[in-house]
Amino acid sequence: MMRNRQVRLAARPVGLIKESDFTLQEADLPALADGEFLVRNIYLSLDPTMRVWMTDRPSYLPPVAIGEVMRGGGIGEIVQSKNEKYEVGAIVDGMIGWQDYTIASGDFQVVPKDVPLTLAMGVLGMTGLSAYFGLLDIGKPKVGDTVIMSGAAGAVGSIAGQIAKIKGCRVIGIAGSDDKCAWAKGELGFDECINYRTESVPARLKELCPKGVDIYFDNVGGDILNAVLARLRLRARIVLCGGISSYSTDQPVPGPSNYLALVSARAKMEGFLIFDYAPRFAEARAEMKPWIAEGKLKSRVDVVNGLENAPTAIRRLFEGENTGKLMVKIADEK
Amino acid sequence: MMRNRQVRLAARPVGLIKESDFTLQEADLPALADGEFLVRNIYLSLDPTMRVWMTDRPSYLPPVAIGEVMRGGGIGEIVQSKNEKYEVGAIVDGMIGWQDYTIASGDFQVVPKDVPLTLAMGVLGMTGLSAYFGLLDIGKPKVGDTVIMSGAAGAVGSIAGQIAKIKGCRVIGIAGSDDKCAWAKGELGFDECINYRTESVPARLKELCPKGVDIYFDNVGGDILNAVLARLRLRARIVLCGGISSYSTDQPVPGPSNYLALVSARAKMEGFLIFDYAPRFAEARAEMKPWIAEGKLKSRVDVVNGLENAPTAIRRLFEGENTGKLMVKIADEK
Repeated sequence: MMRNRQVRLAARPVGLIKESDFTLQEADLPALADGEFLVRNIYLSLDPTMRVWMTDRPSYLPPVAIGEVMRGGGIGEIVQSKNEKYEVGAIVDGMIGWQDYTIASGDFQVVPKDVPLTLAMGVLGMTGLSAYFGLLDIGKPKVGDTVIMSGAAGAVGSIAGQIAKIKGCRVIGIAGSDDKCAWAKGELGFDECINYRTESVPARLKELCPKGVDIYFDNVGGDILNAVLARLRLRARIVLCGGISSYSTDQPVPGPSNYLALVSARAKMEGFLIFDYAPRFAEARAEMKPWIAEGKLKSRVDVVNGLENAPTAIRRLFEGENTGKLMVKIADEK
Repeated sequence: MMRNRQVRLAARPVGLIKESDFTLQEADLPALADGEFLVRNIYLSLDPTMRVWMTDRPSYLPPVAIGEVMRGGGIGEIVQSKNEKYEVGAIVDGMIGWQDYTIASGDFQVVPKDVPLTLAMGVLGMTGLSAYFGLLDIGKPKVGDTVIMSGAAGAVGSIAGQIAKIKGCRVIGIAGSDDKCAWAKGELGFDECINYRTESVPARLKELCPKGVDIYFDNVGGDILNAVLARLRLRARIVLCGGISSYSTDQPVPGPSNYLALVSARAKMEGFLIFDYAPRFAEARAEMKPWIAEGKLKSRVDVVNGLENAPTAIRRLFEGENTGKLMVKIADEK
């Protein structure tokens, strides 16, 4: 009988996620039923939205129940199969959960052989696809647009900002350290970057965007969203990708008091979820792959080793410690 | 020399508008220069947005300066003209200001002879056009949609709700008295109406919209906007027409803390200003006139007599005392 290590939700977090909100347990792996397949998990994605899933509040997915294996996307290799659509040896991408092995019967996508797995987890995975569809489908960038990118050194923001550059926009990042800003400007080609911990965001936005902001791709919410609202240009688009600044509290957080600027600017604020775009993932990857090959779309991964370290690693997202795509390596690729 | 009574802004209001925020003065009317025409003002529109114009804060129009004639839209008759595009005897609609006579050189629209002037001020004027374009162009109603209408007995809300009914939607109004709700349901044909002063809006929305809200046409902002955000249906549209609940304060008001519901629901919140639709006003009026003739689109006007009463009458908007379109009669129609 194979054993399976699983990280289960032990408690609903209060404030920042703590290691004690999880428990690591071992269970026997049951035999496969007809139609099922077994995935040996390799990489687990760590994402800000996981904090939302841990909270007992209605959202786009039901909360993870106490005692349940923590929900999470990732990549693994099929090692047993009783489902003819999923062959042993295939690398697949889907909701693996925080565990060594996953038994599934569908809902996984096969990762093409020529794609490095860390790229499939990052720029060509859910984070890069979120950047792509959020920016292009909701933001609708035009050449010369001024784009503000919060979470500029984060997994989604770093990709969305580069795509905005590729589409001919002027891109101003907002990030939480000088190192992150240096990376966004020096390596990713952002035009400017504001360090929100040491600079006044409203003052810098005023200085850097005298004509206003055409697109704000929002990963953080809070005061930064409110500051950008005060500087919207006519017919601006705010792409709501997330609001990490509010995730680690269970109190109602202040909403954007400047929201009526949407009227003056005839602007819109719109949310999206990447799952809705599944039928168009192939199209997006086909457009992004040449950008990666040509060096126009760079990405960084931040890999933590060991499933047992996931409960502490996830805090890095909320403390602003990661640069690029944060993931946990559960097992070797081969 | 003709004399012109003018209401000028005397002070920036603190909280609710006070009579002493204005002064009534008389001035000589200068002779017309070439290209100018003289309008004898008949009806002055009173609108919530005037409170925004009185505040020294950047918005879609510059604030009215202290000492300046108060800005306002309305209707009058051309009594002198040195502009061949504007003939003496024509009834025109435009920014007349709070005064007996206006000298202008353009930017007025001729009101067709067959339209009663109170209709031209209300359902066929800026308020009705705001309802029409906000609902249809931003809200994009589909048959069977559930539409929430705040300010249901107000000038814009009462019209927008009826247009939603004409388009096959289920319409739930929100208003501030049982009389207003009775009018919205009994006379205007709304399906339901919530009295926000005596009922819990979140509880009633939950009860009345078990499947959620497709369109929210927002005239008020504040707690009501926040309550509706918590009940959005997939791909809901929030039409931001105004936010009267926040206009009478100069402190930052809380924004909608539930705004991240826009992500879960893949929904949008979008503002608009009626001026942008000027090229399509004729199209809108052509569609609305038969509705009025057939009794499907009813309206009520709330007419206060005398320019000198405008400074007290405008408070009625913010105290929720008006039903339908509030206007001041400055002079007789003929």
